[in-house]
Amino acid sequence: MADQDAQSPVGSEPPALPVLRWDELPEGPVLVLLDQTRLPVEEVELVCTDVPALVRAIRTLAVRGAPLLGIAGGYGVALAAARGYDVAEAAGLLERARPTAVNLGYGVRRVAAAYGAAAEKGAVEAAAVALAEARALHREDAQASRRMAEYGTALLEELLPGRGYQLLTHCNTGALVSGGEGTAFAVALRVHRQGRLRRLWVDETRPLLQGARLTAYEAARSGMAYSLLTDSAAGSLFAAGEVDAVLIGADRIAADGSVANKVGSYPLAVLAKYHHVPFIVVAPTTTVDMDTAEGTSIIVEQRSGQEVTELTSPQVVSAGGGGGMVVAPLGSPAYNPAFDITPPELITAIVTEEGVISPVTGVGLAELCARSSQVTIS
Amino acid sequence: MADQDAQSPVGSEPPALPVLRWDELPEGPVLVLLDQTRLPVEEVELVCTDVPALVRAIRTLAVRGAPLLGIAGGYGVALAAARGYDVAEAAGLLERARPTAVNLGYGVRRVAAAYGAAAEKGAVEAAAVALAEARALHREDAQASRRMAEYGTALLEELLPGRGYQLLTHCNTGALVSGGEGTAFAVALRVHRQGRLRRLWVDETRPLLQGARLTAYEAARSGMAYSLLTDSAAGSLFAAGEVDAVLIGADRIAADGSVANKVGSYPLAVLAKYHHVPFIVVAPTTTVDMDTAEGTSIIVEQRSGQEVTELTSPQVVSAGGGGGMVVAPLGSPAYNPAFDITPPELITAIVTEEGVISPVTGVGLAELCARSSQVTIS
Repeated sequence: MADQDAQSPVGSEPPALPVLRWDELPEGPVLVLLDQTRLPVEEVELVCTDVPALVRAIRTLAVRGAPLLGIAGGYGVALAAARGYDVAEAAGLLERARPTAVNLGYGVRRVAAAYGAAAEKGAVEAAAVALAEARALHREDAQASRRMAEYGTALLEELLPGRGYQLLTHCNTGALVSGGEGTAFAVALRVHRQGRLRRLWVDETRPLLQGARLTAYEAARSGMAYSLLTDSAAGSLFAAGEVDAVLIGADRIAADGSVANKVGSYPLAVLAKYHHVPFIVVAPTTTVDMDTAEGTSIIVEQRSGQEVTELTSPQVVSAGGGGGMVVAPLGSPAYNPAFDITPPELITAIVTEEGVISPVTGVGLAELCARSSQVTIS
Repeated sequence: MADQDAQSPVGSEPPALPVLRWDELPEGPVLVLLDQTRLPVEEVELVCTDVPALVRAIRTLAVRGAPLLGIAGGYGVALAAARGYDVAEAAGLLERARPTAVNLGYGVRRVAAAYGAAAEKGAVEAAAVALAEARALHREDAQASRRMAEYGTALLEELLPGRGYQLLTHCNTGALVSGGEGTAFAVALRVHRQGRLRRLWVDETRPLLQGARLTAYEAARSGMAYSLLTDSAAGSLFAAGEVDAVLIGADRIAADGSVANKVGSYPLAVLAKYHHVPFIVVAPTTTVDMDTAEGTSIIVEQRSGQEVTELTSPQVVSAGGGGGMVVAPLGSPAYNPAFDITPPELITAIVTEEGVISPVTGVGLAELCARSSQVTIS
C-alpha cells in the first residue's frame, strides 16, 4: 500500500537524539537544545546561556512537548542558579513562557523548591542541588518512557497475541517530547526493536504537521518501516483492516479518564471503535489533572486561523520568514481548535509509567496516580 | 466558534462564475476556461484554440471536476469540428486525457456521435450540430444542478424541519466542477439563498486543498457564512453538535449504492453515523456506474506520495515552479489514496437530478437511473 519501505537492518541503532543536554563550557554552564523548528530539514543546536534565551526557545517551539518542557524548565532554574541570577525571577519567567503547559510549571517549581531548601548551604551548594534535581527529573522521565514502553508492548501482546502489528499514530510523541524515548512513540519503538512492527502509520497532523515533520523524522532515524498519510486517509486504512491498534499521547487527562490530545485524536477514536480496533493512550501520570473532573470541563484552546489558511514550511521557519504560503481566499475565517477531547468509553486503555488502566475509569485513574511519586510534588 | 463571519447582505448575488464558455473570435472559435490552478490567488482565463491546448488544460487540472470535464470534452469535439481538424482523432485525444474520468468520455462520445450522424450534411453543418450538442449537454448539466439543489433542500427540510442549518462539506463540488452551480455545494447555496444557512463548514481537503482553495473561494464569492477547518477538526464539530448534516459529491457510485469520493469522505460518514447526523451524497445519475457491482470492486487510485510529503501552493502552481515545499524527511514513503469508499449503510440519502434515494439500495438506484435520459447514451 505504500510507495516504498523505510526499514534499515536490525542492529543498526542510531545514536540517541541530542534533544536537550547540560554542558559545562569554559565560560560557564549552558543548556543545549535541538532546534525543533528546523527539523526535518536540518539538525541545529541552540545554546542557551541564560533564562531569557530559554524562554525564547520555549515560545518559538524550538523546544516543545509536555514532558520535555518540564525538564527544560527544571534545567532553566538550575542554569539561573549556576550563573548567579535571581532564581525566583527566573522561575517566574519560565513558568509564564507557555502558561497552558502543565509539565513546564511542574519542572520549574520542583527544581526551584530544591534550590530553596538548600539555600542555607550557600549559593554554590544550592546551585549544585538544583542541577542534581533537574538531572533527577530528566532521569525519571527517561525511566517513565521505558516503563510506558514495557507496559504498552505487554498490553499489545495481550490484546493481539502472537502477531506483528501495524500501528497508527498521530502528532509527535517520541524522543523530541521527552527525557527518554517518549510516550506512544516509545511503545512503537520497542515493538520495532522486538522485530514485530510491520508498519507505523504516521498521520501528518494538520495544521502544524508534527507527524510529517517530526514523527516521520524519528521513525526514519530509528529505521522503522513507516508511511506518512494525510489525517483523513486513516479512514481508508481502518476500512482495509490495515490498522491493528492506535497509539496516541495526551496533553491532559481529566479525572474521569477523558483525554485531551492533538486535534484529530477524537475522529481516530471513533473510527477505531467502529472498526473494533484498540485505541490506546500512552502518557505519564503527570499528565493527569485531578482538578479537572471531566472532559467537558477542559477548555479547548482555539488557535489562529492562519495556521489553516496559510502553510508554513520548516524552511520558512528556518529562514526566519514571517507568514506562510496563503492557500485560502484572503480573509477566510477558520475554525482551529488545538486539541480535542476523547471520552473514556472510546479508549481501550491508558498506559502510564505506573501501569495500565483498562477499562478506563476515574477510580482506576485515581488509584494509579496515588502510586506515582511525581504528582504529589507538583 | 469561528474567527469571524463572512456573510454579505442578502440580494448582492455575484455574477455567475465564468468557468467555461464558447467564444467566436474573428480568427475563429475558441473555448475559454477559468484556470483553476491559479485560484484563489487570481482569476485568469485560459483560451484554447485547439484540442491539444484543451488536453493540456485537462491534464494540468486547469479544468477539473467530473461533470465539467464532460462538458469540456464535448466542446473540445465541437472545436475540432469547427476548426476543420480530424474529429475522430480529437475525440481520441480528449478521451485519453484523463482515463479515469467517466464523464469526460461520456461528453466526448456524445458530441462525436452527433457530429458523425450529421456528417452526410457536410462539414459546416455537422460542426454546427456538434456545437449544438455540446451546448445541450452544458444546459442539461446546469438543469441537473438546479434539480439536485431543489431535491436536496427539500430533503433537508424533511429531515430537519423548521430550522437553519450548519452544513459540513468536503472537497469542491460547486460551479467550478459543473455546467451549473454544482452538486453538494449547489444544495448549500440554495439553502443560503433561502436565508437558512447558519454556516457552511469547509474541510480544507488534504492533500490538494480543494476545500481551502476552491470551496472557500466559491463560498466567499457567494456571500455565505463559512469557516474553513482542517479535515480532522471536523470531529470536534460533530462532538459539539455543530453539524446538522454532511453534504458531499461523488466520483463514482457503484450499483449497490457505495460511493467513491475524495479521500476523507468515509471518516466523515463514520463520524456522522456515530453522532446521528444525516450524511447526504449529491451527484447526477451519470455518476452511477452500473457495471461496478459494489464498493469493494472499485479500484482506488493511489497517487504520488509527493502530494503528502510536499506542499504545493497556488502561487507555486501559478509561477510554473516544479515541486512544492518539502515538509517530511527526504525519501519518506507515503500512503496517498485519491478517494475512499463509503458503503450504503452509512449514507442517509443519495440526491440526484431524478430524485432522492433513501434508504440507499441497489434497486432504488437502478430505478432512478432508468428514468435518466443521459445514462442510456453513454
